[in-house]
Amino acid sequence: MPVQKIIKNGENILLFLNGKRSYLVKAERGKSFHTHKGIIEFDRLIGKRYGTSLVSSLGVEFTALAPTLRDFVFKAQRKTQILYPKDIALIVMFGGIGTGCRVVEAGTGAGALTTALAFHVRPRGRVHSYEIRPEFQQVALKNLKKAKLDKYVELKNQDITLGIDEANVDAVIFDLATPWLVIPHAYAALDGSKSIVSFSPTIDQVVKTVEALEENMFVDIGTFECFMRRMQVRRGRTRPQTLMTGHTGYVTYARKAIVDKANNT
Amino acid sequence: MPVQKIIKNGENILLFLNGKRSYLVKAERGKSFHTHKGIIEFDRLIGKRYGTSLVSSLGVEFTALAPTLRDFVFKAQRKTQILYPKDIALIVMFGGIGTGCRVVEAGTGAGALTTALAFHVRPRGRVHSYEIRPEFQQVALKNLKKAKLDKYVELKNQDITLGIDEANVDAVIFDLATPWLVIPHAYAALDGSKSIVSFSPTIDQVVKTVEALEENMFVDIGTFECFMRRMQVRRGRTRPQTLMTGHTGYVTYARKAIVDKANNT
Amino acid sequence: MPVQKIIKNGENILLFLNGKRSYLVKAERGKSFHTHKGIIEFDRLIGKRYGTSLVSSLGVEFTALAPTLRDFVFKAQRKTQILYPKDIALIVMFGGIGTGCRVVEAGTGAGALTTALAFHVRPRGRVHSYEIRPEFQQVALKNLKKAKLDKYVELKNQDITLGIDEANVDAVIFDLATPWLVIPHAYAALDGSKSIVSFSPTIDQVVKTVEALEENMFVDIGTFECFMRRMQVRRGRTRPQTLMTGHTGYVTYARKAIVDKANNT
Amino acid sequence: MPVQKIIKNGENILLFLNGKRSYLVKAERGKSFHTHKGIIEFDRLIGKRYGTSLVSSLGVEFTALAPTLRDFVFKAQRKTQILYPKDIALIVMFGGIGTGCRVVEAGTGAGALTTALAFHVRPRGRVHSYEIRPEFQQVALKNLKKAKLDKYVELKNQDITLGIDEANVDAVIFDLATPWLVIPHAYAALDGSKSIVSFSPTIDQVVKTVEALEENMFVDIGTFECFMRRMQVRRGRTRPQTLMTGHTGYVTYARKAIVDKANNT
Repeated sequence: MPVQKIIKNGENILLFLNGKRSYLVKAERGKSFHTHKGIIEFDRLIGKRYGTSLVSSLGVEFTALAPTLRDFVFKAQRKTQILYPKDIALIVMFGGIGTGCRVVEAGTGAGALTTALAFHVRPRGRVHSYEIRPEFQQVALKNLKKAKLDKYVELKNQDITLGIDEANVDAVIFDLATPWLVIPHAYAALDGSKSIVSFSPTIDQVVKTVEALEENMFVDIGTFECFMRRMQVRRGRTRPQTLMTGHTGYVTYARKAIVDKANNT
Repeated sequence: MPVQKIIKNGENILLFLNGKRSYLVKAERGKSFHTHKGIIEFDRLIGKRYGTSLVSSLGVEFTALAPTLRDFVFKAQRKTQILYPKDIALIVMFGGIGTGCRVVEAGTGAGALTTALAFHVRPRGRVHSYEIRPEFQQVALKNLKKAKLDKYVELKNQDITLGIDEANVDAVIFDLATPWLVIPHAYAALDGSKSIVSFSPTIDQVVKTVEALEENMFVDIGTFECFMRRMQVRRGRTRPQTLMTGHTGYVTYARKAIVDKANNT
Repeated sequence: MPVQKIIKNGENILLFLNGKRSYLVKAERGKSFHTHKGIIEFDRLIGKRYGTSLVSSLGVEFTALAPTLRDFVFKAQRKTQILYPKDIALIVMFGGIGTGCRVVEAGTGAGALTTALAFHVRPRGRVHSYEIRPEFQQVALKNLKKAKLDKYVELKNQDITLGIDEANVDAVIFDLATPWLVIPHAYAALDGSKSIVSFSPTIDQVVKTVEALEENMFVDIGTFECFMRRMQVRRGRTRPQTLMTGHTGYVTYARKAIVDKANNT
Repeated sequence: MPVQKIIKNGENILLFLNGKRSYLVKAERGKSFHTHKGIIEFDRLIGKRYGTSLVSSLGVEFTALAPTLRDFVFKAQRKTQILYPKDIALIVMFGGIGTGCRVVEAGTGAGALTTALAFHVRPRGRVHSYEIRPEFQQVALKNLKKAKLDKYVELKNQDITLGIDEANVDAVIFDLATPWLVIPHAYAALDGSKSIVSFSPTIDQVVKTVEALEENMFVDIGTFECFMRRMQVRRGRTRPQTLMTGHTGYVTYARKAIVDKANNT
């Protein structure tokens, strides 16, 4: 039977207050976390099991959770527009991404999607992430280190519109302003049959991307959007939440076909 | 640089015709696949790269793709109501499931979700999947074998309402008629801080499940539903698709908290 | 106190079986209605109150309802793609349409929207409905007569892209392939401040329409789409319906502004 | 040809700035409207056509629109939660409400729905609106007067759970916390075949309401919700709006059946 996980000195924990507020902090001996709901001394948590609940100096209950991918994605520093967990989950599914995959990503941005890709290709796969703005790479590196996933990622300060270095990769993932410009490079970089997934907020980007995919011998081309609506669940008063994110972006996916002329004569 | 993937004798391939029709078949030497769009001899594909396009005896183009998780999930034999890729992707994300995880699932059903869980916990994790109906286990086993993921799964012909054998697991996933009855067992089986995710079609199931989670010391309890709408992308005629699946089910998630009484006195 | 409404010989009634099946028929003395659920003799209904339930010759219960606008819209002969009640309701609201309004409509199609407009402008308003295809006008006239609303409508066999005859109208409503071509005519026909509403299935039509509105001095320009999802309500098993119409069309609205140069110098 | 509408002294106008800001004000001789975008003297508008655009003292363009039902509904003083135009439009459609109808409504609230009902039953129909809180009636009366629709409404300071005074009415409309308690009264008040429509935010209210409708001989019972999503339309950058109202409430509708025992023997 596996051992229970214990909070160790120096580890990141998620201090959970409620569905709207939680804090991703480093639990360090002798230090404490100050919030408007009171103080929590980390010495009370180090050596305890993950999941331990405790009350702050003001009597408010917090729970010390082990951060998951969802937390790291959600807490990624928002210097850029980040993707939502729902979109990331679907990009991973439609990209066919799993342990051992070699993935090319562009752009890195704040690293939210990079974090998810690294999480899923561990431990032997690798993410090659292109980004032309060094300041974003710094943010992404910090976020990846916090999630202990930086060793699975190569952050490349390169312009992907000039070409992709890698070959025979398992997936190419775009969160770019002009994905259609890079689709010929993606075709060249992908192994046969493998997937490209592109995320774009506007319908104009989608149309240009789909056209470029059709011109570059991709098949199984599709586009969808995903709405996620939360529910307020309380016996006798259950209802959907009033406020909802009505749009994040469209997900476009496709797979590389190879024409074998000798085969069709 | 990794080698290109080649179609080998006896492997499963996805013969892709268009967005509505594709066939998950075994490519065997000397055999062929017959469809209303013509015949395809597997000898023309074995030894070629995945992704190779070829024309059938009736001149219709097919592409021989390497099946992905999404294909296995979608093609799982529909003896039961199966989950959609969108729901599976979100269950994996909110379950915090990745390589190495030990996961308990109930019920197995046709194994669509089991397949996705096995794919993500590979190669060292394990899925313990409970199901009381042996006939479903047969279907699930067949689907898992097709995806070569059966070795990561323990199919248990046991009633999970009587208890969970495993301890300190990383996630418990329910696709059951009465999840609320099993939540105390899930609490006992989970390691601290770890996630439970339950999928239910009706709002009444959700209410009972959330109440059981609240009574059993879970925190970060939430429920959402996800709508996926496909787009018809064609320059000058782009529009959302007319028909849409308006509801599959609600996803409820939570994480296990532990009360440490000594800590709060 | 108003008298109760009685079913008279020769009137249209809605024989309601269930949420999926109902029949808009003329109740005539000595005749009967034959369905796979049995026969109903109209003599049993004539002289009775609207709303009367009765059992057919096969013992199945029907209810004789007074048809409403929603029934006439829904039962309009579907020789063209008709609009849904949800879209019609929103077009009426955003068109500012009420009793006494003079409204221009194009094209007439099967007359579903025409019927709704006529219903709302009664008794002193008027709908001027343009349509170039005489065969649709015949269908529309039949539908309008069934709803006893034909006298509020002028069916014009004219091409609206050549101009609008009416002036100072209260609303212009378009359900056309190329609304942007007719927007200058709509501007000329509308009284100051009055509304144009256009319904289009594709986003490309919407973009061209909005551009034409901006170029033609309209203000308060907006576009939305409306999703309607039905619920299956049953204690203990309540859930949204599985199948849903994911898209009918976009509604674009605007109001006519007038530039008064003398006023701004 | 009808005459053009002119802004007269003392009339309500909608000073439209943009899609987010507009002001419903009374245009009075010698007075002016002060906003952070400059001053507008009403003397520049009185005697001009509705729809006239003019620039404020700070050079910002406004348009003087004739307020429509949508504006009155939207601008109704928000002392209570008001209904959205989309919901009101669908309530009117499913209530079968048009000119001449006699409608019972409860509760009045701030009068947003009352205003819409009065607009549609004009000039010979009538709305009988029940409300137990006099302070809301004051707000509703003010809103109705602004829209010049007060003469079509009887505001009743009565508890509708004690009974409905009117008989043989054409529709009963509920926006109440406990609609199920009043459904027997609604049945008694409605003419045969006529419609009840109830708007409720929670699913629990819907279930109780539907059960009460089933027990009280209503037929054609249905429930739906309506989502409205706005689009940002701009060539090359068109996309749905990010923020969306995810839920306002469920609309439940039904029609009164009458059992005629003599008819079925």
